[in-house]
Amino acid sequence: RYFHFCKLPGRVMGIRLLRFTSVVIIVLLLVAGALTALLPNIKDDKMPNLRREPKTESQSALDSFTLIMQTYNRTDLLLKLLNHYQAIPHLHKVIVVWNNIGEKIPEEMWNSLGPHPVPVVFKVQTVNRMRNRLQNFPELETKAVLMMDDDTLVSAHDLAFAFSVWQQFPEHIVGFVPRKHISTPSGVYSYGSFELQNPGFGNGDQYSMVLIGAAFFHSGYLEDFQRQPEAVYALIDETQNCDDIAMNFLVAKHTGKPSGVFVKPVDIRNLEKDTNSGYSGMWHRAEHLLQRSYCVNKLVHIYDGMPLKYSNIMISQFGFPNYANHKNKM
Amino acid sequence: RYFHFCKLPGRVMGIRLLRFTSVVIIVLLLVAGALTALLPNIKDDKMPNLRREPKTESQSALDSFTLIMQTYNRTDLLLKLLNHYQAIPHLHKVIVVWNNIGEKIPEEMWNSLGPHPVPVVFKVQTVNRMRNRLQNFPELETKAVLMMDDDTLVSAHDLAFAFSVWQQFPEHIVGFVPRKHISTPSGVYSYGSFELQNPGFGNGDQYSMVLIGAAFFHSGYLEDFQRQPEAVYALIDETQNCDDIAMNFLVAKHTGKPSGVFVKPVDIRNLEKDTNSGYSGMWHRAEHLLQRSYCVNKLVHIYDGMPLKYSNIMISQFGFPNYANHKNKM
Repeated sequence: RYFHFCKLPGRVMGIRLLRFTSVVIIVLLLVAGALTALLPNIKDDKMPNLRREPKTESQSALDSFTLIMQTYNRTDLLLKLLNHYQAIPHLHKVIVVWNNIGEKIPEEMWNSLGPHPVPVVFKVQTVNRMRNRLQNFPELETKAVLMMDDDTLVSAHDLAFAFSVWQQFPEHIVGFVPRKHISTPSGVYSYGSFELQNPGFGNGDQYSMVLIGAAFFHSGYLEDFQRQPEAVYALIDETQNCDDIAMNFLVAKHTGKPSGVFVKPVDIRNLEKDTNSGYSGMWHRAEHLLQRSYCVNKLVHIYDGMPLKYSNIMISQFGFPNYANHKNKM
Repeated sequence: RYFHFCKLPGRVMGIRLLRFTSVVIIVLLLVAGALTALLPNIKDDKMPNLRREPKTESQSALDSFTLIMQTYNRTDLLLKLLNHYQAIPHLHKVIVVWNNIGEKIPEEMWNSLGPHPVPVVFKVQTVNRMRNRLQNFPELETKAVLMMDDDTLVSAHDLAFAFSVWQQFPEHIVGFVPRKHISTPSGVYSYGSFELQNPGFGNGDQYSMVLIGAAFFHSGYLEDFQRQPEAVYALIDETQNCDDIAMNFLVAKHTGKPSGVFVKPVDIRNLEKDTNSGYSGMWHRAEHLLQRSYCVNKLVHIYDGMPLKYSNIMISQFGFPNYANHKNKM
């Protein structure tokens, strides 16, 4: 038949070509129209979209940290604090260590009040142990951990600054609560705060621990903690205390230097009195401080030596909050 | 003959033995008496000896520092400051860079008022140059240098603390006077203090330099300074200024980090107004600050880039002077 095609007069061929191209053009227009209908309709967005990108997609493991917060019998404080901490810059994820054995996690309520800036994971525990927060959680993706007690509020400025300090001292516990131990002539150690300053030296004071209940430290130390002598776990379980002292021993042994770097907080608050639960923290127990002295001596025995070292470095943020906080008479 | 010895009657042998042992005992007593006479006589010391061991014999090069103080036309201040600085703990030696060309050093007076705790060396200069203090002096034996302007008094506590901080940050300039540079949209830099804080950020301030006129740094940097481009020396000589900015560039380039660590001084004083010489420092010249901005830009050109980096770390001494200077509301 195609001979005929070639031999057909020009006019007939022209009409066929015209029909063909018309059909093609119409089909293309229909396809274009269909595509346009599929485009998102911008005019319907009345509110500008100010929400940040979901953090899990944009924060790298080096530039962000994971908040680990253990909670017992203070869910009202926990939720108040979660609303604060979920918005801290550079936060990657929150891990809530749920020590309320047998009680349901508030996951439904949490989800119903979403969306949230970062993922929050509730880790249900089977036994109410102080050292539950020192597990090597698989959900932990960042190099840095921020550990907070469930009654402590630290301002965003303090946390952002302390995180930047931790990035310069990643092998140390960088935090807001310093403590020290004292050697006595009998060789028995005592634990304390700064009422224990050796009088008469006139040359300032020293700290040898930074408590982990308000501090940044390297997630690798959680891994290390799993490899400690059994006696350490037994001690923490026996006292339901001293997990933080044990961590300071671990870090000091590892680095051969002072375990902590103290960052002076501008705005740190204890919300204990604000709880409706009527539960007050472990540190109110009469034997709390004596227990901690006991722990220091037990840990020296377990580790066969005193690894804690003293420091007198106190770090503040230049020009904050008072832009002239570095001025002097000169 | 010794057969006879064996055969001699016991009594004769006894007497010989007795004589022998008597002689031995007497000789031993005489020797002991002689030794006793050689012992130091403690009773003659009426004043307890409170003077420290001469520092040059007991201070190791790592645990002590050398003070380098350049002086021009303020000998009265110099001598006042020497009396203060000569007694600073961990001081090894003082090097006075004598920029009073043609004028005799006060060596006779200095010696007549001896003894002094440490050696003081007067380095006579042939030309009055700002960069004379940045020579690699052969008398320098310590790793650490403390450089002080000849009108600046810093308390012993501040210096002892800052020295301990330097020992933890030996590659940085650890000192008491922070400054910064600002980038502008035109690409031209400006030098300044903290009136230049970028307004509205509300997140504190930053510094990018620590001035060497009141700071500790590693003596190796004096060696490095001898190997800089000629244009750097020409710049400092042209302006009689900016040697400290040049040092900060050098250190920042070397470390890839902020050049300085700022230690907030408790007690730092400028004694300028106390001089009888009528001479006031270079920084009173009208063009002083403009010159320093000029130097920043010239150095960027010489070094083909801006190596200075910002820091907001401010270090203070824990528990000093106020033993509770680290307390908070918690």
